[in-house]
Amino acid sequence: MEPTVKWIDDGDCGGYVSLIDQTKLPREYARIEIRTCARIAHAIKTMEVRGAPAIGATAAMGMALAAMMAKDEPIDSFLRKLEVAKNLLDSTRPTAVNLAWATAKMMAVARSSSSPREITRLLINSAKEIALNDVAINKTIGRNGARLFNDGDGVLTHCNAGALGCVGYGTALGVIRSATAEGKKLVVYSDETRPRLQGARLTCWELQQDGIEVIHVTDAQAGLLMQQGNIQKVIVGADRIVKDAVFNKIGTYGVAIMARYHRIPFYVAAPCSTLDVKKMAKDVVIEERDPSEVKNVLGMVQISPENVPALNYAFDPTPMSLVSAIITEDGIYTPAGLVDEYWN
Amino acid sequence: MEPTVKWIDDGDCGGYVSLIDQTKLPREYARIEIRTCARIAHAIKTMEVRGAPAIGATAAMGMALAAMMAKDEPIDSFLRKLEVAKNLLDSTRPTAVNLAWATAKMMAVARSSSSPREITRLLINSAKEIALNDVAINKTIGRNGARLFNDGDGVLTHCNAGALGCVGYGTALGVIRSATAEGKKLVVYSDETRPRLQGARLTCWELQQDGIEVIHVTDAQAGLLMQQGNIQKVIVGADRIVKDAVFNKIGTYGVAIMARYHRIPFYVAAPCSTLDVKKMAKDVVIEERDPSEVKNVLGMVQISPENVPALNYAFDPTPMSLVSAIITEDGIYTPAGLVDEYWN
Repeated sequence: MEPTVKWIDDGDCGGYVSLIDQTKLPREYARIEIRTCARIAHAIKTMEVRGAPAIGATAAMGMALAAMMAKDEPIDSFLRKLEVAKNLLDSTRPTAVNLAWATAKMMAVARSSSSPREITRLLINSAKEIALNDVAINKTIGRNGARLFNDGDGVLTHCNAGALGCVGYGTALGVIRSATAEGKKLVVYSDETRPRLQGARLTCWELQQDGIEVIHVTDAQAGLLMQQGNIQKVIVGADRIVKDAVFNKIGTYGVAIMARYHRIPFYVAAPCSTLDVKKMAKDVVIEERDPSEVKNVLGMVQISPENVPALNYAFDPTPMSLVSAIITEDGIYTPAGLVDEYWN
Repeated sequence: MEPTVKWIDDGDCGGYVSLIDQTKLPREYARIEIRTCARIAHAIKTMEVRGAPAIGATAAMGMALAAMMAKDEPIDSFLRKLEVAKNLLDSTRPTAVNLAWATAKMMAVARSSSSPREITRLLINSAKEIALNDVAINKTIGRNGARLFNDGDGVLTHCNAGALGCVGYGTALGVIRSATAEGKKLVVYSDETRPRLQGARLTCWELQQDGIEVIHVTDAQAGLLMQQGNIQKVIVGADRIVKDAVFNKIGTYGVAIMARYHRIPFYVAAPCSTLDVKKMAKDVVIEERDPSEVKNVLGMVQISPENVPALNYAFDPTPMSLVSAIITEDGIYTPAGLVDEYWN
């Protein structure tokens, strides 16, 4: 599979972004070419690109595009425009930390020179590096996590923490890919993940591409499947990991409670850039998206009556007490072990 | 609201069934007129009418239609045709017990006379009586259960155990109606209930008709809403209550586990005709419906790729250990109290 998002060079200090339009999958595989930071912000907001690591890399490229456009201005106004770009990008989606992590990293790079053209070159390289590293990190996460899975396991996942949610390979699905590459045969139950249906549309699509057995299930079937003994492991990604909780796609928390009730291990796979050592769960803003995403399935079928309100929280926090292990590029941690390593 | 299903008399030994086409709601309120038992079976199978009490009453009317059509035949072939009708109706949906309860009751009535015309008259009256009783029973369930709710409660419900799932008034929603009539202001969070979206389409619609505050939520938001303290009570209906479990719409089990984790009471409201004193949970067939209902939302939008399989279990068993109380027309029971009353 081609990278979810990539930078295409076009001469000195030039280039553009190419990304898969994830709103069209699985109906159609189409790539979008983006040449402005504002269009990048739109792509993140409307979820043409989504998934914490993918939006981190995409936002970094958005900063590079903003720099390109201002590269002939004096350094002061150049940096001001980069700040504006950062604020615009940071405001698109508040919950995933990788986005702010990437834009902060880019601003730090921007302060390492006084030449806008030179800074633009550096920012383009940094964005490309973030994208390249993402795939390498995911492969390490995959290798680290694969040992937790056994041949024949039924594995439940929620949303898409796959190649499509990253630049490539994936976090939770990266672990599944690695275990599969080691010769373990897994059956993946993919929660469809209302309202945007990333599990049905994206996880099913990308595992099918790789020939990994995947079954589409409604979110409400997870409990029965666990009761029937079909699920041996749960693995999900993360949008932000704080000391006391893992923020991930809405519904993850319920899956974690059900896994605990059935004594099924609940694993989280994420790069260290997902760790937020400054906040506690109560300090994190949970994005509320437009209720129309709930009331209208994929904007096509209205399912509840006019004038009935709908809630559309995009994420929920799963307390660390429900997490069996966190798999990062540095290794496998218990929640206590992770705190020891990164918070103390 | 007009009854969900009603019998319209048309001369001696004549009449037809009028029911709301629930597949069209909330887009359109339309009634269907049905004059044959085969068409009744089709309506139950395709969920034009659904909800355990509603399909019980509808199946009884189906038996009356079958009798009408054979009323001029000799008693032997008349009774044979009724048996065929019973088998056809019983086969439409295996999990809800009220259906088989109603058709068995009709067969018992059929054996009380030797005149097909007289039996037909009796069956028509029995079907009308079942429908009439359903509403009366639900109002009693409502009165019994209302005391469990407090002014200001946030109440989560799953699927539609409302007027539309019965002949009228509803079981779980009947309790909500009764509590509201007593002057308690409740906020109902209606799980949308994939795949057929009865919560979004039907529960939201009928509570809106009654001016009861209702909010459409995806099934995957229930956990977060409980964590945030928005839910004080959960109430659902039931399709079959056995000694060790309550069978209800898929997803109910997960809601019950989440309620237990948050120490939120989990109530089941159902008529005594839902009790099955002969079976244990392991003996009950869980209906598996066509995967296309999962892969295509309301038959209109395909959400997962071709050739990816989907599961479509229609019900799940919630063990009695997760049930706080069962509300019937006879009163409020703990699971142990219910067993004492009906099993011992």
